[in-house]
Amino acid sequence: MMAAQQIRERSERVRRRFDQAEALLVTDLSNIRWLTGFTGSNGWALLTPDETVLVTDGRYGGQATAQRAEAGGEGRVIVGLSGAAMLDSLAAEAGTFGSIAFESAHVTYEQFQRFQSILKTTLVPVGGLVEAERRTKDEGEIARMAEACRIADGALADVLANTGLEGRTEAQIRNALEIRMRELGASGPSYETIVATGPINAARPHHRPTDTLIEPGHTVIIDVGALYDGYHSDMTRTFFIGEPTPLQQELYEVVLEAQKAGVAAVESGLSTAELDAVCRTAITAAGYGERFSHGTGHGVGLLIHEDPFINRTGDMKLQVGDVVTVEPGVYREGFGGIRVEDLVVVTASGCRVLTASPKDSPCPPSPPTT
Amino acid sequence: MMAAQQIRERSERVRRRFDQAEALLVTDLSNIRWLTGFTGSNGWALLTPDETVLVTDGRYGGQATAQRAEAGGEGRVIVGLSGAAMLDSLAAEAGTFGSIAFESAHVTYEQFQRFQSILKTTLVPVGGLVEAERRTKDEGEIARMAEACRIADGALADVLANTGLEGRTEAQIRNALEIRMRELGASGPSYETIVATGPINAARPHHRPTDTLIEPGHTVIIDVGALYDGYHSDMTRTFFIGEPTPLQQELYEVVLEAQKAGVAAVESGLSTAELDAVCRTAITAAGYGERFSHGTGHGVGLLIHEDPFINRTGDMKLQVGDVVTVEPGVYREGFGGIRVEDLVVVTASGCRVLTASPKDSPCPPSPPTT
Repeated sequence: MMAAQQIRERSERVRRRFDQAEALLVTDLSNIRWLTGFTGSNGWALLTPDETVLVTDGRYGGQATAQRAEAGGEGRVIVGLSGAAMLDSLAAEAGTFGSIAFESAHVTYEQFQRFQSILKTTLVPVGGLVEAERRTKDEGEIARMAEACRIADGALADVLANTGLEGRTEAQIRNALEIRMRELGASGPSYETIVATGPINAARPHHRPTDTLIEPGHTVIIDVGALYDGYHSDMTRTFFIGEPTPLQQELYEVVLEAQKAGVAAVESGLSTAELDAVCRTAITAAGYGERFSHGTGHGVGLLIHEDPFINRTGDMKLQVGDVVTVEPGVYREGFGGIRVEDLVVVTASGCRVLTASPKDSPCPPSPPTT
Repeated sequence: MMAAQQIRERSERVRRRFDQAEALLVTDLSNIRWLTGFTGSNGWALLTPDETVLVTDGRYGGQATAQRAEAGGEGRVIVGLSGAAMLDSLAAEAGTFGSIAFESAHVTYEQFQRFQSILKTTLVPVGGLVEAERRTKDEGEIARMAEACRIADGALADVLANTGLEGRTEAQIRNALEIRMRELGASGPSYETIVATGPINAARPHHRPTDTLIEPGHTVIIDVGALYDGYHSDMTRTFFIGEPTPLQQELYEVVLEAQKAGVAAVESGLSTAELDAVCRTAITAAGYGERFSHGTGHGVGLLIHEDPFINRTGDMKLQVGDVVTVEPGVYREGFGGIRVEDLVVVTASGCRVLTASPKDSPCPPSPPTT
């Protein structure tokens, strides 16, 4: 049995962080899920001093009540049969408060105008309030993410052993990975699996798989994660097809050493810019700094990309309970690309790596003999 | 070969609709894809009188240039290596215009504040400008959606014939459908496939599949679509396990007749509220109006839910080239639920139904004999 999540404490954690207004209107669906357990595609949560009221539409009434109860949460669920009815219900609740904070990073300009015209209360913009608590994963969340990592590790190992890379297309490998993750218990892929092969495609960090054949001489980037009970995993490995060239070998070692240095540096209190610098300095010292064209990593949880973001301008400090990727890479059209990525959870003594696929050698196991 | 999309005309179509400002800042990723062919997860398009400039980050430079060229589009691609650098690049472009319109339904309150502080120009909120053109699908888009429907039809037929429903779990059927869609050419499911069985789960219109067993006496709602080259399909069928009860049979006929009446009513010029009323009136006349707890349908395209939305308060008129669902349903906890949904394209003479799975009988084919 997976460790329970501490749903009931979460509203309280947010309340303690919050004195900008009398209540907080939560509109981001991941924040709503985290606070209430509700997974529907439409809803608002109003966090008052006494309860967390959930407003949703007619498709989700029964589901919202049941999911909240299953998650161990409490509070009223109000169903509006149209968007206008939902807004009226929200206005009735909001009217008892002199001021309500809203999530300025999620409410659109248009939504803000609508809220302002209908809610008879002062609206106060706040940024990242729920996210600031949500980034700290509890035991139940970490267990779910560890399971998602285990599924992706297993799928990658099975596809390398049973399908092989050479002679397959990028799309075939993506399909095989996503199907195997499902068989191993994932509710889906964590994001569209990246399989990027050869001098052009592997040079694009977020390449979308095509019918390009994986051929000798290629580097192949596989970036794969599983979704498990709402939580994501994220991992990248790079493979060579056939004997690597000296340049491929050199670049792999540069990226791998930078990635290992990054993982070794992870500790509570380190700033995200400092962690980025650890990987970037190593790659720059080897002469490839300008080929590392993205940030070092990002938080992962109910979203595949969430706080803390780890890049040159990152000004957050790592905290115990953060789950983040460490994923330096180098890319050049005509050469291809190399990226190595692990998912780690920040602990009191450094970090624990949740992804377990081998990374010391970039060569895939021999293709299946069938 | 799939019909080409008319990328180059699209910016021109939007320009003709638009006189609120000197240029248009497009921030919604689906709108950006539609205008430029670019599929990355981060970018802005600035539609000026002369070109459509694409601004993205270091992960996507090569991809953005290549995808635009492949799609037959043109215009500069500007790469910023960080969010701040992207914003600086945008500011440099924007500075030459006295006013710029922004997408008020997509720009968040926080983003608006940031744009306002950095772009040295007047910002003008506009709503749904690109969407107003994007809802009209061209031949290439309709061909992609027809192919997505064909894939989902094939997967459903194969799973019914080869796996069967009775004795399987909801999650097993979801997995089988999603795997089969991949095998038939989908790049993924169009949304998380809904398989909802029995008196509790099938009563939730957007139920997420669980390990609940599909058993005799159940109604089973299967809502499944494929994603094909960026375009979605959407279809629902309801099945009975074993001999239907008189109530199940009656409700199926009520929903099916309402759905057929809705499809028959689709024509250019009909308002979305009128189309909703066709289905709703039929179900209300049978005494189950309050059990039809959602709208009649929605547009489908690059998004699974997009304009025009078809519900009681809908004030859009259907147009030739709209692709919409018609999907009435009735639900009650303790009974379960029934929904029948097709995807149709509005034509000069009514509509063409893109989904082809049988719907006249709710009983699945006999389970496989293996």
